[in-house]
Amino acid sequence: MKTYIGIDLGGTNVRVGIVTEDGEVLQQIKSPSYAKEGPEKVMANIKQMVKQLDGWEKCTAVGVGVPGPCSQQTGSMTMSTNLPGFTGYPIASELSEEFGMPAFIENDADVAGLAEALVGDGKGLPVVMYVTISTGIGGCLIVNGKCLSGKHGYGGEIANMIVGTSRNKYNHLTPGAVENEASGTAVSRKGRERLSELNIQHAGEVFELAAQGNEIAQSIVEEAVNDLAQMFASIAALADPDMFILGGGMMKSADVFLEPMLQRYRMITHEALHDTPFVIAQLEEPGLIGAAMLPKSHGY
Amino acid sequence: MKTYIGIDLGGTNVRVGIVTEDGEVLQQIKSPSYAKEGPEKVMANIKQMVKQLDGWEKCTAVGVGVPGPCSQQTGSMTMSTNLPGFTGYPIASELSEEFGMPAFIENDADVAGLAEALVGDGKGLPVVMYVTISTGIGGCLIVNGKCLSGKHGYGGEIANMIVGTSRNKYNHLTPGAVENEASGTAVSRKGRERLSELNIQHAGEVFELAAQGNEIAQSIVEEAVNDLAQMFASIAALADPDMFILGGGMMKSADVFLEPMLQRYRMITHEALHDTPFVIAQLEEPGLIGAAMLPKSHGY
Repeated sequence: MKTYIGIDLGGTNVRVGIVTEDGEVLQQIKSPSYAKEGPEKVMANIKQMVKQLDGWEKCTAVGVGVPGPCSQQTGSMTMSTNLPGFTGYPIASELSEEFGMPAFIENDADVAGLAEALVGDGKGLPVVMYVTISTGIGGCLIVNGKCLSGKHGYGGEIANMIVGTSRNKYNHLTPGAVENEASGTAVSRKGRERLSELNIQHAGEVFELAAQGNEIAQSIVEEAVNDLAQMFASIAALADPDMFILGGGMMKSADVFLEPMLQRYRMITHEALHDTPFVIAQLEEPGLIGAAMLPKSHGY
Repeated sequence: MKTYIGIDLGGTNVRVGIVTEDGEVLQQIKSPSYAKEGPEKVMANIKQMVKQLDGWEKCTAVGVGVPGPCSQQTGSMTMSTNLPGFTGYPIASELSEEFGMPAFIENDADVAGLAEALVGDGKGLPVVMYVTISTGIGGCLIVNGKCLSGKHGYGGEIANMIVGTSRNKYNHLTPGAVENEASGTAVSRKGRERLSELNIQHAGEVFELAAQGNEIAQSIVEEAVNDLAQMFASIAALADPDMFILGGGMMKSADVFLEPMLQRYRMITHEALHDTPFVIAQLEEPGLIGAAMLPKSHGY
């Protein structure tokens, strides 16, 4: 059975491992990523870690998940907020040369989606939409086992999908962008604004208050539910996926918002689309597994 | 060079032809489709027409474009408003048996999009989004030369993308569905409502009045421009296509609305997406060519 080297490179930690083509993690090692010390230190550490893995030389290829948008043409990041100095750094070609095998990189949301589509609940389905709702909102549309990255690598970057036309502008995103209206950050912001006496720290508290019957919290949840439903309806209208897979920190509150969100989704979509399954991501190591699956999605 | 039989079956007319794998139409014949006389008459007529084409026996496969949603599993239409009796009728298997070659069917918007993506301006591009704006709004996302049809065959059926949350309900579509706000029908409806003294018959008159400086017509055009831009922005956020190709009757008024629409699109999308080309469909026979390209998109 083929094996791949997976590298899950974050701003804080890096994990490397050997993963089978079926997505089984055979070995893994974790370390600080040393992001602040710059690309040379980060890369030297990764190379040393990989060489500690038994049988790394027998792997077919290497895949790297990184925290930001990438160019598959150059094998480098196009923006690297959490990995200083990595914009344009030739990660893929350097690792390919070091290990003597093909190397691929992709952003971490796409990599996690790929894992869910190839070895998680989406296994075997032609069209899978992975959506992560957390601090931000991101995603990946996986068509026949491959991330649809698009012309500029922005495929699946649904943060800026517009769900309302008369909303405030908060940041670089367009007013009404779903990330500013229905992410964990957005729910938390609305909680701080409208429940100012309760010293809200994170979105989970707003969901908990809603479940306990707090009407202000319920109205915040209802807004998020409506906006998320509209985002999912737009995705369904364009891609009609075989499955939606939902990940990200906000899924901890899925018992509060998921069922109302599905009800709303069904209200605003064509009847034919109502049976599309929405499942919560279950893989424990989607970042590492997905990184290892990257070469496979490219035919290696 | 491979050749294919293309069949463009409409509610009024049917065209059959022989098309090369490069999209060149070698021969074509047109006839009434005899839709009202039922499937047997329609199919008998098509079979007879194909057999009048020189060299039909040497074609690799046959493709049919039909006016409504299809199931590729059964090779039949799932709804056939304009072809009575065709819901569930096994078009593909009957033609495959008659001509002794593989047969495929797909709805006409998808087929037109496929033609534009495979032999029109989208030729060679990995991700092409074809959008037709006419009586309705439809489309097709073509990924690596194949229509993304999705779980229920609703992929690309963007009519129901929601572009506003406080709009009226007009029909079976969701309030705020782009087709009810920015199609030719919608522009014409708004013209009749708001310019009732002018006896508006079709959308083109509203665009012409706007170009002549009529402020009410201009406000109708501005609404359509904003709503279409939002639809295109949502598509770009999910699929980041290499090219948008625009067809349909409303393109006759492109000189009035396309440039303002692009300006609005650029206002509400990430800077990286601003250089995505929007081109107007140029093929003269997209229905016939696209039907013939269907087998090719399935690997024949």
